[in-house]
Amino acid sequence: MDEARRGGESSRGMRSSEMKGSAWGGVDLGGTKIEAVVVDAEGRPLGNARHPTPAGGPKEVVRAIYEALEDASRSAGLAPRRLAGVGVGAPGSVDSNTGTLARVSNVGKGWTEPYPLAGALADLVHGPVVLGNDVQVAVTAEYRLGAGMPYRSVLGVWWGTGVGGGLVLDGIPWRGRGAAGEVGHVVVKPGGSRCGCGRRGCMEAYAGRGCLELKARKAVKRGEKTMLLEWMKKKGRTRLTSSIWKKALDEQDAVATRLIDKAVLMMGVGLSSAINLLDVDAIILGGGLGTRLGVEYAERIHEAMRPHIFVPERQPPVVLAQLGELSGAIGAALLAEPPLH
Amino acid sequence: MDEARRGGESSRGMRSSEMKGSAWGGVDLGGTKIEAVVVDAEGRPLGNARHPTPAGGPKEVVRAIYEALEDASRSAGLAPRRLAGVGVGAPGSVDSNTGTLARVSNVGKGWTEPYPLAGALADLVHGPVVLGNDVQVAVTAEYRLGAGMPYRSVLGVWWGTGVGGGLVLDGIPWRGRGAAGEVGHVVVKPGGSRCGCGRRGCMEAYAGRGCLELKARKAVKRGEKTMLLEWMKKKGRTRLTSSIWKKALDEQDAVATRLIDKAVLMMGVGLSSAINLLDVDAIILGGGLGTRLGVEYAERIHEAMRPHIFVPERQPPVVLAQLGELSGAIGAALLAEPPLH
Repeated sequence: MDEARRGGESSRGMRSSEMKGSAWGGVDLGGTKIEAVVVDAEGRPLGNARHPTPAGGPKEVVRAIYEALEDASRSAGLAPRRLAGVGVGAPGSVDSNTGTLARVSNVGKGWTEPYPLAGALADLVHGPVVLGNDVQVAVTAEYRLGAGMPYRSVLGVWWGTGVGGGLVLDGIPWRGRGAAGEVGHVVVKPGGSRCGCGRRGCMEAYAGRGCLELKARKAVKRGEKTMLLEWMKKKGRTRLTSSIWKKALDEQDAVATRLIDKAVLMMGVGLSSAINLLDVDAIILGGGLGTRLGVEYAERIHEAMRPHIFVPERQPPVVLAQLGELSGAIGAALLAEPPLH
Repeated sequence: MDEARRGGESSRGMRSSEMKGSAWGGVDLGGTKIEAVVVDAEGRPLGNARHPTPAGGPKEVVRAIYEALEDASRSAGLAPRRLAGVGVGAPGSVDSNTGTLARVSNVGKGWTEPYPLAGALADLVHGPVVLGNDVQVAVTAEYRLGAGMPYRSVLGVWWGTGVGGGLVLDGIPWRGRGAAGEVGHVVVKPGGSRCGCGRRGCMEAYAGRGCLELKARKAVKRGEKTMLLEWMKKKGRTRLTSSIWKKALDEQDAVATRLIDKAVLMMGVGLSSAINLLDVDAIILGGGLGTRLGVEYAERIHEAMRPHIFVPERQPPVVLAQLGELSGAIGAALLAEPPLH
């Protein structure tokens, strides 16, 4: 691609490290933090920065994204205006064509109407900005640079507070009409547990960390014994983090074990439905809980799928995400199309 | 495409209707019948023929396919050797790359090992033969020439003895590693009813006509009253056909109503899971039972999906297949790539 055109100005006369086109920015916009990264032409991180997500409206959020990019650029020895392009992975309802973000509930004060986030950020970075879905870009990063590299087609399952998903089919991220990949809302039990989305029986209602915490708190109210909430208080947390769940499982806490066993069982149901429909080469397991529980649980989910797989002799593997906490930001940077020679 | 190259010989000097490249053959290989069609460059049927599927092995089946093609060609005023190419849609395990068909249970005597069906038929028709999955080719036909024409991406649901499925995503049939589209084996109730595939709780276990008949027979054994089996005997049938189910529903037969209500409910669960994952533009409902029950039941399935759809304001329509009984054969002919100008 024509670097001068992408950057909007000529690169002549600049020092190599300062040329537009030698570095790309990526931002993972989350409810608590903004993770920014600057990558080279191969998608390798040159620098990164993490800022807290501000409590305000979209303008404040855009300002904070720019500042995180500034810091990430500085740590890479660049000015943010030297980025050839920037990609942003965001939760909520993303319209990549218009660069707008709508229905954001847990970023800043949240907003409902479409906000032109890409345009507003482009005015600050003086270059092109592309907007994408946060989980989809993380899955795309794993597909192109991480655990998905050996495969043609993958389903990414991001197991955290919710259960997000992303599809890459024959190399192309599949978003349908913009909302595809919601594997967390595959129905695993009609009329079952209440999900954060308001519906019943979704896979996320059994496996999402948010729903798991509600179930743990209910168990405590019923008088069941668990160390989960004590450890949470001891660590000065207000939420059950992935590491608290991990510790509880390691110490064979009865409530944690029962709830996670059920989560694994239900992920087996939902993910095999997805495989029977799509027959992709592999499932990539990521997200806070997926990464923390690691390969043992990837294997357990694989086992839980076995009874439901239509072509059992070709059941795809469940592999762990490899790019770690930067996968979302790196994936976002890929939206800006570094060449990845 | 170069017609001479496709046909393997020069077309010079032939009469127009006899030129290789002016007509394409398509075959829908079924358990009871072989439906053959000859189409023009726009995919319009020029002639067709229906032969019973022979009881023998793969060689006999190939011979019968050729004879059906001969008849279809004759009814189109052509010789089968004049077909520019032939496509075959088949049940079982299709390998399109090698042109082999394996694990066929209900065609002829059935066979397990891969049989080079495309090659064997090509020797008889003296032209290229392409093999595809029977439901996928029918869905592709609807996508390109029928109910799917207004849409970019569709999920086809073929509601018959089983519940088959096919995906076309942005114009491209999606088969995964060869087995995608098995929407009938999305799990709608873990540990639920036994399915024909041997597993439990599949959508097909509640909606497939085969499983519905088993449930009806069990209901009769339990002493429930239904006209289903009487009508079957009266019509001289050994199986509950789609028209018998339709009549029973029209006459408010209690068993038929209860079983089909449950089927609709479970299709609502399974199909909304598929939509949450794939976010396609539309669902096309085909197959014997789907076509026979018609638009009223397409609407009922749409309603049954509503409680489970993740983005309810963009729930895709459920539209009826339009090409009728020839959809499979026409779709198979499209495998041979007529230009469809």
